Amino acid sequence: MPVVSGRLHYETKGNAQVIDVTADVAQEIASSGLADGIVTVSVVGSTGAMTTCEFEPGLVRDIPELMDRLIPPGSYHHDQTWHDGNGHSHLRASLVGPSVTIPFSSGKLVLGTWQQIVFIDFDHRGRQRELAVQMIGE
Amino acid sequence: MPVVSGRLHYETKGNAQVIDVTADVAQEIASSGLADGIVTVSVVGSTGAMTTCEFEPGLVRDIPELMDRLIPPGSYHHDQTWHDGNGHSHLRASLVGPSVTIPFSSGKLVLGTWQQIVFIDFDHRGRQRELAVQMIGE
Amino acid sequence: MPVVSGRLHYETKGNAQVIDVTADVAQEIASSGLADGIVTVSVVGSTGAMTTCEFEPGLVRDIPELMDRLIPPGSYHHDQTWHDGNGHSHLRASLVGPSVTIPFSSGKLVLGTWQQIVFIDFDHRGRQRELAVQMIGE
Repeated sequence: MPVVSGRLHYETKGNAQVIDVTADVAQEIASSGLADGIVTVSVVGSTGAMTTCEFEPGLVRDIPELMDRLIPPGSYHHDQTWHDGNGHSHLRASLVGPSVTIPFSSGKLVLGTWQQIVFIDFDHRGRQRELAVQMIGE
Repeated sequence: MPVVSGRLHYETKGNAQVIDVTADVAQEIASSGLADGIVTVSVVGSTGAMTTCEFEPGLVRDIPELMDRLIPPGSYHHDQTWHDGNGHSHLRASLVGPSVTIPFSSGKLVLGTWQQIVFIDFDHRGRQRELAVQMIGE
Repeated sequence: MPVVSGRLHYETKGNAQVIDVTADVAQEIASSGLADGIVTVSVVGSTGAMTTCEFEPGLVRDIPELMDRLIPPGSYHHDQTWHDGNGHSHLRASLVGPSVTIPFSSGKLVLGTWQQIVFIDFDHRGRQRELAVQMIGE
C-alpha cells in the first residue's frame, strides 16, 4: 500500500480568507490511483489552518467576524517578540488546527453534499502558501 | 496492510448534543481484524464535529453552555443565504473540527481511562447522522 | 508498509503549559526507518491537547491568557460531578483537540520553519503525561 504525496499552492489575501481546496484535493486523490484510504491536508506554516465548512458567501464572512470577536487583532506578547503584529493570526491558527484528515472510498472524498475542505489563512497580509497533501491507501 | 471502512449511524437531538461513540468505534476495530494502526472518524456533513472528552453528565451540559457563550445562536450571514437559522451550528462545527484520528495498538484504542471519542451534533434540530470510520493498519 | 508505535512522556506544570515535542516526534520518525507517511500524535487523557504553533516565549504566554479569557477557570457542571475544579481544563482540551496528524517525507516532518508540534497541558496541576506517536508509511 503506497503513500502518495502532493503539494498545493495558493496566493492568499490573509485576514481569515477562507479558500475551498476540495477540488484540488480530489484531483490529487484521482491522480494517486488510490481507491480507499485517508488524506491528510496540512498547512506548512503557523498562521494558517484547515477544517471543513459549507463554502458559501455567508459563512465566508461569518468566519472572519467570529475570529475578530473571539481573538481580535491587538496587543499580544508574540508581537513584543517579533513586532510583526500577527499574534492573533498565530492564536487563531493553533485553535482551529493545522491539518485535517478525511477518508476517501472508491476514489472519492467522504464528505457531505454541503461540506468542503477549506484552508483559512489567518495571517494579517497576503501570502504565498503551501499545503501538504499526504494520501495513504490501497 | 489493508484499509477497512465502516459507517456509524445515529439519530440525534442536535443543539450540541454530545454522543459517546467509543464503543461503536472499538467494535469497528475489532471487526476489522487489524491489530495496530490509526482510525479516523469523520462527520459526513458540515454541522457536526468530532473530539474526545470525559463523557460524564456534567461536561455533557458544559459543552453546550460553552458554545452558547462563545458562538451564540443569532443572526449570521449564513442565515441570510439559506434562512435556516443554523449559522452558529456551522461555525461551531468548523471550530471544533470534522474528524478525529486516534491510534490503536493490539486491537485497542489508545485513550485515557476517562477519555471517550465523542460526536457533537451542533445542528439546531435532530438529525439522522452518519460517521465514516476509516481504519488503516496491519 | 508497517505501522510503528512510540510513546513519549513528559512531566508538566499544567495550567496551559505549552511543550514543544517536535524534536521527540522527529526522533521517533528517524528511529522508525520510515521515509514517507503520516504521524499521529495523541494525548492519552482528556485534559491535554495537540496542535502546532511557533514555539517562542510570547505565544507561550499568549495561549494561556487566551484560554483564561475564552474558557476561564470557574464553576462548571463537571466540578459538581467530581469536585476536582478542572472543568475548564476539559473544555479547553476538547476544543483544541486530542491529536494532530502531520505528514513526513524523506524522513522529515513537513512543517514550516517557525512551526512546531506542541502539547498543551490544560490540567490545573502538574501531571505525568503520555503521548502516543503512531507512524504509518513506507
